[in-house]
Amino acid sequence: MSMTMSEKILAKASQKNRVDAGEIVIADIDIAMMHDLTGPLAIESFNKIGTEKVWDNNKVVIPFDHQVPADSLTSANNHILMREFVKKQNIENFYDVNEGVCHQILPEFGHVVPGEIIVGADSHTCTHGAFGAFSTGIGSTDMAMVLSTGKLWFKVPETIQFNIEGTLKDNVCSKDVILKIIGDIGADGATYKSCEFSGPTIKDMSMSDRMVLSNMAVEMGGKTGLIEPDEKTINYVKKHSNKNFRTYKTDNDASSLKVIDFEVNNLEPQVACPNNVDNVKPVSEIDVELDQVFLGSCTNGRISDLRDAAKILKGKKVAKNTRMLIYPASRETYSKALDEGLIKIFIEANALVMNPCCGPCLGGHTGLIGPEEISLSTSNRNFKGRQGSPEGKVYLCSPATAAASAIEGRITKPE
Amino acid sequence: MSMTMSEKILAKASQKNRVDAGEIVIADIDIAMMHDLTGPLAIESFNKIGTEKVWDNNKVVIPFDHQVPADSLTSANNHILMREFVKKQNIENFYDVNEGVCHQILPEFGHVVPGEIIVGADSHTCTHGAFGAFSTGIGSTDMAMVLSTGKLWFKVPETIQFNIEGTLKDNVCSKDVILKIIGDIGADGATYKSCEFSGPTIKDMSMSDRMVLSNMAVEMGGKTGLIEPDEKTINYVKKHSNKNFRTYKTDNDASSLKVIDFEVNNLEPQVACPNNVDNVKPVSEIDVELDQVFLGSCTNGRISDLRDAAKILKGKKVAKNTRMLIYPASRETYSKALDEGLIKIFIEANALVMNPCCGPCLGGHTGLIGPEEISLSTSNRNFKGRQGSPEGKVYLCSPATAAASAIEGRITKPE
Repeated sequence: MSMTMSEKILAKASQKNRVDAGEIVIADIDIAMMHDLTGPLAIESFNKIGTEKVWDNNKVVIPFDHQVPADSLTSANNHILMREFVKKQNIENFYDVNEGVCHQILPEFGHVVPGEIIVGADSHTCTHGAFGAFSTGIGSTDMAMVLSTGKLWFKVPETIQFNIEGTLKDNVCSKDVILKIIGDIGADGATYKSCEFSGPTIKDMSMSDRMVLSNMAVEMGGKTGLIEPDEKTINYVKKHSNKNFRTYKTDNDASSLKVIDFEVNNLEPQVACPNNVDNVKPVSEIDVELDQVFLGSCTNGRISDLRDAAKILKGKKVAKNTRMLIYPASRETYSKALDEGLIKIFIEANALVMNPCCGPCLGGHTGLIGPEEISLSTSNRNFKGRQGSPEGKVYLCSPATAAASAIEGRITKPE
Repeated sequence: MSMTMSEKILAKASQKNRVDAGEIVIADIDIAMMHDLTGPLAIESFNKIGTEKVWDNNKVVIPFDHQVPADSLTSANNHILMREFVKKQNIENFYDVNEGVCHQILPEFGHVVPGEIIVGADSHTCTHGAFGAFSTGIGSTDMAMVLSTGKLWFKVPETIQFNIEGTLKDNVCSKDVILKIIGDIGADGATYKSCEFSGPTIKDMSMSDRMVLSNMAVEMGGKTGLIEPDEKTINYVKKHSNKNFRTYKTDNDASSLKVIDFEVNNLEPQVACPNNVDNVKPVSEIDVELDQVFLGSCTNGRISDLRDAAKILKGKKVAKNTRMLIYPASRETYSKALDEGLIKIFIEANALVMNPCCGPCLGGHTGLIGPEEISLSTSNRNFKGRQGSPEGKVYLCSPATAAASAIEGRITKPE
């Protein structure tokens, strides 16, 4: 019987031969991730449940990335609380303030493989769907149940497959593709759907580029954002992980599958305008002066993103009245960028290179904007107040657009 | 008639042939510096005074370094307020979030030359005394008067000359010398004195090492911390500045001069223990586990400090339960550290490299410690709560001691 990738993974995880969209299943969790911002509440709830030990200390992954290093007594206290939990529960997969953004270091450290169920107390956990894992964000109290039991209920989602065809023009990135999709179908266009990205354009994309698509599935309401594993996936995973895994694919005739075609040959760079991710326009239609440009986040802080930006920034300077903040997504990303001379290019361009962390994305650590300030950002959300003041404005774009715009001091098409 | 260096500089600045210690003079200010934390209050007071324009827009220097990039709406608003002031007053010597720590970038950008009067709305403005300038910290309201009039009153200080002789052992740094001095004479041992560092040991020191001494003059109550300019001073200044300048020296028979001799041949690395800078002990007497090591600040974030630390950290790892935060003092420092491979050494040692700024030193941006946490720090103050929680503890040391201790996870003698 035909099934989607989501259905097959959820069936396996709930020890069934078949599940159907709409059905409720209790699935075994393979990886449970919580970070410094959501972890404390999960731990508090876990303690209330009263379970002595987490169900499997090898399956819990704890990265610190949102407020690192601590920027307040509250965050310092949160870190202390979580370090104590890590010690008490003997959790080896703990990444302190120096490693980077959770959704980047999970694959880097081999915690992500195809066919598994990954839950994270962070809405962008859908990122790992790029590896063919059913990966989704959950609340901190749900996380407490997972820590106690290793299981969680899911309503099996229907699938929307975005079938992408065409060759992207120079300086048009996977970020532009996903912004275009979200702009077209809307912020609630895929609510509780398993979003799947397929087609020849996706096949051509690197794992990094694919992660951008999966990462933003939640911005159109998606439960997860899957991509069928191929040779690139297998190569990445085998290089980073020693776990065994199995790959799954969606059957074309699965009954809960809906296919939407996109053609991207002539796609222009896209920008999501304030204050919604689906308020998307071609960059050429926007002319706005910038106070700040933010390159980074779990969406676009990877080495390929830094390369895209460095290519444009090399030998240039950030505009006098604009500041550019660059947050590499992980220590490994930072280290590669060092080796390739990218950090030097950024420093010489007068950009500010920060530590690997979420930065201004959450509006609560460093790089906040004030009232009336305008930020252009490679991150994934531009809600009112998202990067600081509710009277500030955030535009979203690709790393190439961010770099070109930083040089001009206004939103500019990368060329 | 014999005079001290301070007396000679203050006499020139107040258009007199001679001044005596204890006398009140009105001196012309050559450089007025305020940063993002103290600037807003100075500007508010300046606006109350009602002067339209600052007395000399070329003599005002504004670096952002305490809360960069903005970590709260308050700091974002402070930055906006100051950027508007910079524009309105046409202040060219403005350094936004990307340049680094004020006391490092003032000499780097050529604002510091011998024989001038430098005031800064920051207590460690005494740092620039290392170049033979009369340089001192003032309050924000005094700064408002300076901005209006270009003048400020001073009581001419008496001078204590610390005459240092002997050769420092390997891994004993100028920081150890100044900690030893402060430990010996006490936190109020030089209250309102012009501290002067002289003797063959000082002659042997680099400008960076000298700045460490001057920087901490205020920690024993000093009004400034002078060092007689020599060839090294002249070379540095000519390389960085195109200002004309004149050098001054203290006459040995000046009546307000008191000389204290120190001999440092057998000096051990020193540590200032909680919660006072003068609670100083040899490192070998201390055995304390560390949660955090902070390398940076206007005291010890310079390229020579990073080199000292990198030499020890190369090929090693920071201890598992200790985090090490490194804040290069400026973009130039960061850039040199990149070129010399130091940043790579730090990253491979699992240290966290931050942006050039004050970091945890002020207890108000990033790198804060929580209750019961212990920080070892190359900065200049270990008062209760200085780096975060009042229930935390801060020890002060040299970059070499910091690096060696980070590897061991406990305060350790560098070898």
